[in-house]
Amino acid sequence: MAGKFAGSTDYFVTEDDAGDVALLDTTLRDGEQAPGVSLSADQKATVARGLDAAGVDVVEAGSACTSASERETIRRVAGLDLDATVTSFCRGVRRDVDLALDCGVDGVNLVVPASDRHVEGKVGTTREGVLDTTRDLVEYATDHGLWVEVIGEDGSRADPAFLESLAETASDAGADRFCLADTVGHASPEEVYARVSALAEYGPVSVHTHDDLGLAVANALAGVAAGADLVHGTVNGVGERAGNVALEEVAVALWHCYDAEPVATERLYDLATTVADATGVPLPPNKAVSGENAFAHESGIHTDGTLKDDRMYEPYPPEAVGRERRLVLGKHAGRAGVEAALAEHGVSVTDDELAAVVARVKELGERGKRVTDADLLAVADDVRGSDRDRRVELREFTAASGGTPSASVRLEVDGEERTAAGTGSGPVDAAVAAVRDALGDVTFHLDSYHVDAITGGTDAVVTVEVVVTRGDRRVSVESSDADITSASVTAVVDALDRLLPEKQASAAD
Amino acid sequence: MAGKFAGSTDYFVTEDDAGDVALLDTTLRDGEQAPGVSLSADQKATVARGLDAAGVDVVEAGSACTSASERETIRRVAGLDLDATVTSFCRGVRRDVDLALDCGVDGVNLVVPASDRHVEGKVGTTREGVLDTTRDLVEYATDHGLWVEVIGEDGSRADPAFLESLAETASDAGADRFCLADTVGHASPEEVYARVSALAEYGPVSVHTHDDLGLAVANALAGVAAGADLVHGTVNGVGERAGNVALEEVAVALWHCYDAEPVATERLYDLATTVADATGVPLPPNKAVSGENAFAHESGIHTDGTLKDDRMYEPYPPEAVGRERRLVLGKHAGRAGVEAALAEHGVSVTDDELAAVVARVKELGERGKRVTDADLLAVADDVRGSDRDRRVELREFTAASGGTPSASVRLEVDGEERTAAGTGSGPVDAAVAAVRDALGDVTFHLDSYHVDAITGGTDAVVTVEVVVTRGDRRVSVESSDADITSASVTAVVDALDRLLPEKQASAAD
Repeated sequence: MAGKFAGSTDYFVTEDDAGDVALLDTTLRDGEQAPGVSLSADQKATVARGLDAAGVDVVEAGSACTSASERETIRRVAGLDLDATVTSFCRGVRRDVDLALDCGVDGVNLVVPASDRHVEGKVGTTREGVLDTTRDLVEYATDHGLWVEVIGEDGSRADPAFLESLAETASDAGADRFCLADTVGHASPEEVYARVSALAEYGPVSVHTHDDLGLAVANALAGVAAGADLVHGTVNGVGERAGNVALEEVAVALWHCYDAEPVATERLYDLATTVADATGVPLPPNKAVSGENAFAHESGIHTDGTLKDDRMYEPYPPEAVGRERRLVLGKHAGRAGVEAALAEHGVSVTDDELAAVVARVKELGERGKRVTDADLLAVADDVRGSDRDRRVELREFTAASGGTPSASVRLEVDGEERTAAGTGSGPVDAAVAAVRDALGDVTFHLDSYHVDAITGGTDAVVTVEVVVTRGDRRVSVESSDADITSASVTAVVDALDRLLPEKQASAAD
Repeated sequence: MAGKFAGSTDYFVTEDDAGDVALLDTTLRDGEQAPGVSLSADQKATVARGLDAAGVDVVEAGSACTSASERETIRRVAGLDLDATVTSFCRGVRRDVDLALDCGVDGVNLVVPASDRHVEGKVGTTREGVLDTTRDLVEYATDHGLWVEVIGEDGSRADPAFLESLAETASDAGADRFCLADTVGHASPEEVYARVSALAEYGPVSVHTHDDLGLAVANALAGVAAGADLVHGTVNGVGERAGNVALEEVAVALWHCYDAEPVATERLYDLATTVADATGVPLPPNKAVSGENAFAHESGIHTDGTLKDDRMYEPYPPEAVGRERRLVLGKHAGRAGVEAALAEHGVSVTDDELAAVVARVKELGERGKRVTDADLLAVADDVRGSDRDRRVELREFTAASGGTPSASVRLEVDGEERTAAGTGSGPVDAAVAAVRDALGDVTFHLDSYHVDAITGGTDAVVTVEVVVTRGDRRVSVESSDADITSASVTAVVDALDRLLPEKQASAAD
């Protein structure tokens, strides 16, 4: 099929195309079909509210035929009084439409098979049968006041002529729109363009794309170029297999490249973290828009450039999607980045010292280590020959589980020994409670506690990263050990050591 | 800028365009610039060999100016006797080219600033200065026998006329090719197309894209449509910010949509896992081509369809990229999928029993649980009323850390009590050693031990998933607890309980 559309015109997306585009979010249905993902009614309501606040036009709340509890949830979302049109996914059977009606939705996404593989192999019917069903159900649904979108499942692999008959039938029966579904993520942008162009002759067209070939966004835009004015997507691209097109990527591409703003982009990061928390599918660090590193700069060239001019290495400012820029130290660290990081901790160094600190930071980075605040400060101390006495030192700890998890610690705080014990929900939690008790009046807040996924054996080395704040100071520390409890306690104690104010010269100095 | 190219022709990728395309991999340089990523010389050599075996045309081994150890690594890759052209990244200074020559590379990727922001703001020179440097360095490098690609940094934001002068200067000076770099992931496909089309007048063109807008693959293909015949990418898309275009996605899109095969696709999964291991950046579950779920089917409709016809919900067979299909049970489970899973464990059920098992599996899935083998078998037992006595039960355990981690367990194995203790690298490792000792002659293998990333507080509930094999039987079990040790021991014991052969009726029955 490749190349057969070559030479056609008007492929490009224009501001005119993009200006009319609205978004339909299917996180609550397609997203939930991802293996291992299940959202509670509360979670669905939270996500739906977030989508509505961002200005998403249509929220598909679920699939009414799935179960009684799914219907309860759809009813809940339909009752939220959102600006968005709330819909249910329905298979091409009347019972599904009745169940959707029973949930009080505004509309339905009515799925009927379009490719012969799905018409015959999956549903076991005929093309004629599909057309008849479509006509009946669209009439039934519109008679009941529903907004109706007919989705031709596997439409990108359907006979183009049959796909057009399906769109025509849907339109004649009163459907509000027809959707080209690239259900299995098979299509090239050329194919999407050609099909949507043809379908647009019969009425408004939506486009539903998947990322199996990495082409989800490309295909959504090809649909827009061909006249589609509603794009389906899921937040974070969660969905079956390689997922659906990521709603936030489509939104940002339309905004940045074509000056359209189908949603409030500054709400996208909040949406992304809400959905990551709800689904349990973490955001990849290099995810466009919402990944941890999307606005992080580590290499010296990039950090230096960014310190000179924010836009040097960014297509658009992070604030536009509700985020902040991060400068990170590592293997490719340069002078400007290291100097800026030291200044944040109130440390100033000479030029020679700076060169030495940079060299040592690069060395740490080359060993594959994330260079934390504590690492940087330790290096700076060492380079400046400031023989800093530790304020807090871990002398001993024990932690036990089985029964009520408990732990004890022996700390040395400014030369004075302090011991304490604690209990917790697990040994790490107990050990942190013991540290807290031992420090008494030195209050602190464990801002974040993070352990990377542990894969391999039970003897794998675990890296624990903590961020601890005390008053307005904040320190990140990383610690690695095959024992997760040991790594955790060490990291927390090292952070506290850095958070106590500079000691006055003591008698021992 | 949006829409200004509308109406142009020949935008589409054709088989002719795609057939000539080769790939340049920059994982070892761009990929390593991702925050927290650092590859050892051994790891770089392993990745380079993998890329070469897959048929990647050009391997950028690093940036010679970075450090002595980086040069050592580049020398190592250059000495591997690969079919691929091995290059070093060089800034536009003679010293960098000398350092690259010293490493014995075949060529250089010579980066010079193209946008005024980079020409003036970052490098502090003038357009004329850039042209002079480019001319000098290209002549110098080609005189020394190097293959030379000139990269116009931030080319997508450069004045188009200056970008063309740069390409012309590079070509006149003898460069092998010029690369349009969308350094900050700013461009729309329309802009890439227009720029590459213009640049192609002066000689061969490469395209280098980033994913900040989710358009990395779209832009790479727009470049190909416009005449680029070398596409830069990194395995898994690792790189600065949102990363570079994922090499495996470009490769699969070219193959599936345009019948071109720039690399051996069946090696792509191996490459992806090699790079994920080396960089420590895990593969997102919904990553195209290489994600855990890319060929997994959970929902009933999809599982049923797939059992009828492999291609029902897949654009291409997983074997094409070196993978296998997975059917997963969860909230949307259907009869066919559950029946197939039970059959794998040698369990057959009546129609009524199957319906009951499906309902219970869906219930588990709705609680957000991955449904493991152990869950399925427990449900089946319960539904069939087969009052199965547990073979192995955990009666008690203790685990301690601080000093040498140790643990004890008290198990009941077929009604007989067994206690044992063990030590290990941490409390979990010690506890598993204790279980192993307690079971004595019942040997088993812990195939995989996985804990999802832990984020939040130290009291977060941790989910441990283990796969245990014994002989030719294999069982997956998941267990959750705020205490990681408790969750781990429980999971391993539950797996062993399922792996012991069905018990003969005992006197007590």
